[in-house]
Amino acid sequence: MDITEVWEDLAWNQGGKIVYLILDGVGGLPDPQRGGTELQVAETCNLDQLAKESSCGLLEIVGPGITPGSGPGHLALFGYDPLKYRIGRGVLSALGIDFDLQAGDVAARANFATLDQSGRVSDRRAGRIATDFNRELTQKIRDRVSLDFDGTFFFETVSEHRAVLVLRGQGLSGRLHDSDPQQTGVPPAEPRAKDDASQLTAKLVRSFLDQAKAVLADESPANMVLLRGFERYEPLPSLQQRFKLKGLCIADYPMYRGVSRLIGMDLVDPPGGIEARFKALQTQYAKDYDFFFVHVKKSDSLGEDADFDSKVSLIETVDRLLPLITTLAPDVLVVTADHSTPATMGKHSWHPVPLMIYSPHGRLDEVAQFDEYTCRQGMLGIRPGTHLMGLALANAGRLQKFGA
Amino acid sequence: MDITEVWEDLAWNQGGKIVYLILDGVGGLPDPQRGGTELQVAETCNLDQLAKESSCGLLEIVGPGITPGSGPGHLALFGYDPLKYRIGRGVLSALGIDFDLQAGDVAARANFATLDQSGRVSDRRAGRIATDFNRELTQKIRDRVSLDFDGTFFFETVSEHRAVLVLRGQGLSGRLHDSDPQQTGVPPAEPRAKDDASQLTAKLVRSFLDQAKAVLADESPANMVLLRGFERYEPLPSLQQRFKLKGLCIADYPMYRGVSRLIGMDLVDPPGGIEARFKALQTQYAKDYDFFFVHVKKSDSLGEDADFDSKVSLIETVDRLLPLITTLAPDVLVVTADHSTPATMGKHSWHPVPLMIYSPHGRLDEVAQFDEYTCRQGMLGIRPGTHLMGLALANAGRLQKFGA
Repeated sequence: MDITEVWEDLAWNQGGKIVYLILDGVGGLPDPQRGGTELQVAETCNLDQLAKESSCGLLEIVGPGITPGSGPGHLALFGYDPLKYRIGRGVLSALGIDFDLQAGDVAARANFATLDQSGRVSDRRAGRIATDFNRELTQKIRDRVSLDFDGTFFFETVSEHRAVLVLRGQGLSGRLHDSDPQQTGVPPAEPRAKDDASQLTAKLVRSFLDQAKAVLADESPANMVLLRGFERYEPLPSLQQRFKLKGLCIADYPMYRGVSRLIGMDLVDPPGGIEARFKALQTQYAKDYDFFFVHVKKSDSLGEDADFDSKVSLIETVDRLLPLITTLAPDVLVVTADHSTPATMGKHSWHPVPLMIYSPHGRLDEVAQFDEYTCRQGMLGIRPGTHLMGLALANAGRLQKFGA
Repeated sequence: MDITEVWEDLAWNQGGKIVYLILDGVGGLPDPQRGGTELQVAETCNLDQLAKESSCGLLEIVGPGITPGSGPGHLALFGYDPLKYRIGRGVLSALGIDFDLQAGDVAARANFATLDQSGRVSDRRAGRIATDFNRELTQKIRDRVSLDFDGTFFFETVSEHRAVLVLRGQGLSGRLHDSDPQQTGVPPAEPRAKDDASQLTAKLVRSFLDQAKAVLADESPANMVLLRGFERYEPLPSLQQRFKLKGLCIADYPMYRGVSRLIGMDLVDPPGGIEARFKALQTQYAKDYDFFFVHVKKSDSLGEDADFDSKVSLIETVDRLLPLITTLAPDVLVVTADHSTPATMGKHSWHPVPLMIYSPHGRLDEVAQFDEYTCRQGMLGIRPGTHLMGLALANAGRLQKFGA
């Protein structure tokens, strides 16, 4: 029995409200030329003030040396051990466009791509076509492709070159190899079955790809569809079922909306921008929710762009807007990240992320700045990412005593 | 294989003596008006001196966010993972009154209670009747209640309104719902079976309760018995079997005596008071024991009473008496708690507890005060409660090398 299951047993439908402010990828590494990490260099008087009033520490989100994707990173923060609850991008993408996935559906991520005259992939993203053009193409495919089985398929625009394929019917499997070769200069791969039980699905997918190629033959630059991350959708137990939390997601970006829907949160319409998200929290806070997930995406994107200075500015923007949240005086307010994305590396990394938990029952520490180094000295120590939900629940008075 | 099982393999019957001084619930939270936690505010020159000569850290007893009951809290300190070794109050209560529980016995906690004229519970504790009156009533019940099965029952006074019911016979089960409704204004609940195999036990318990109600009909205020925490007793492997430790318990309060008996410790008669307990350790230390568990209860009770100042005084009393222990120069002396009971909260909490291990092989640190904040900076870091036994065994030279 792992510790998250103990929380399930102990959680009750009483106690305070919990707000998670997740600054995606905000953890960083020091840039010697700038004299610190992104969080250290940023001027953040509001975050620092909150640190003074909070218990601080570091979270090692999935485990030592593990660089988390955004899906597992968030699952860990929500108390779902990513080593146990595995979900792929296909399912997340479908959930993230508000697609009503049903148990047993098979989803895959789709890219519009460019094939050269010899049939080799010359651009896996078809020059990042506009979303409107994507919509035209998906409509054509829906109109003209027909699959011969006792079920249906859905082909849905996400944005730019991205789309989702969903197959719905009996006996489908997600155990298929990608058709996306993940490189240019080679032809698309065969979506081969990984076992016998997946032969039917592989046949349907091949038929879909053959027909889609024919439909797109005269298009440019998007003359092909590549598929990856096939996965059969099995819903996860919800936050309500596990921790007696009625949750609300306040996020713009599909992936994070998808994770939230996967564990049964309600969602507000994408607010569009950080300030709008913080204001949405203000509007929703008094409503009948126990748990609010507020997501900031750009700290990650700018880290991935290796744009140290812009990541610093983004952190300062969040800091400036933070009073929109703190004036609500949430019972428990958590600020942390789903993983580090150091601008010096330009990608996700395994480094632990700073954490602060503001709560009336916090054991306050000497930490007076919110960054990777000062939080290391805090009372919470370094912990696995899954610990966070237990601490948040306890601080909110939402866990009963264990044993007598 | 968990780490406590590795210690089982490595433990040998050599090495020094280990003393655990457990200050129940001593961990606290800062009270802003008093400028610190109970341990910080207390004047504790002896504890602080010991901290200087010890390795320090924090123990997160059961897990993040988990508020331990006293039973699981102590099991963790003794190296028994409370998620694996689960015991309830019924069994602990029976063990705690020196009742000789046998494997297969079913025990439940009993309360004398008051029913109003309509049969509803008006006081779950019958005004906390005196222990002597409790004895009279339990004797009446023993004399007049008769259960129709091939076995026996025992009904034993604990103290005040508390008693224990034990059923002994073949095929009994602990999978019964409580008859104690845990609230007033409603009638007692039916002690329903949770599965078919528990029907016999449920029938016996119903018969017991019906007869007890009749026996008590003319009593006031204790005119009913409520039962909760039914549990079948399966003895745990002993400290001797697991870690080759012959243990002695020096405690006054039934629950802690019960936990000790459960894992095979010998017990001295309740010494009555802290000083008497410390002196009992002096008397016993040279005897043929490897492990001494000395328990201080009041740090918890005063925390539960939200009485910050009295908890501080109690800590100062322990500090004043500490030389009774340190002059013995135990090979390994551990001072810690089974959980926090911050006076600011007035109840058990999930916050990690301070720990110090005095040992000739300790890696001494800079910690010069015994409290939650300074111990956070110590060499032992923040650890699960179960780690303690391994560290104590190692420091006492009681664990062999792992591998070659």
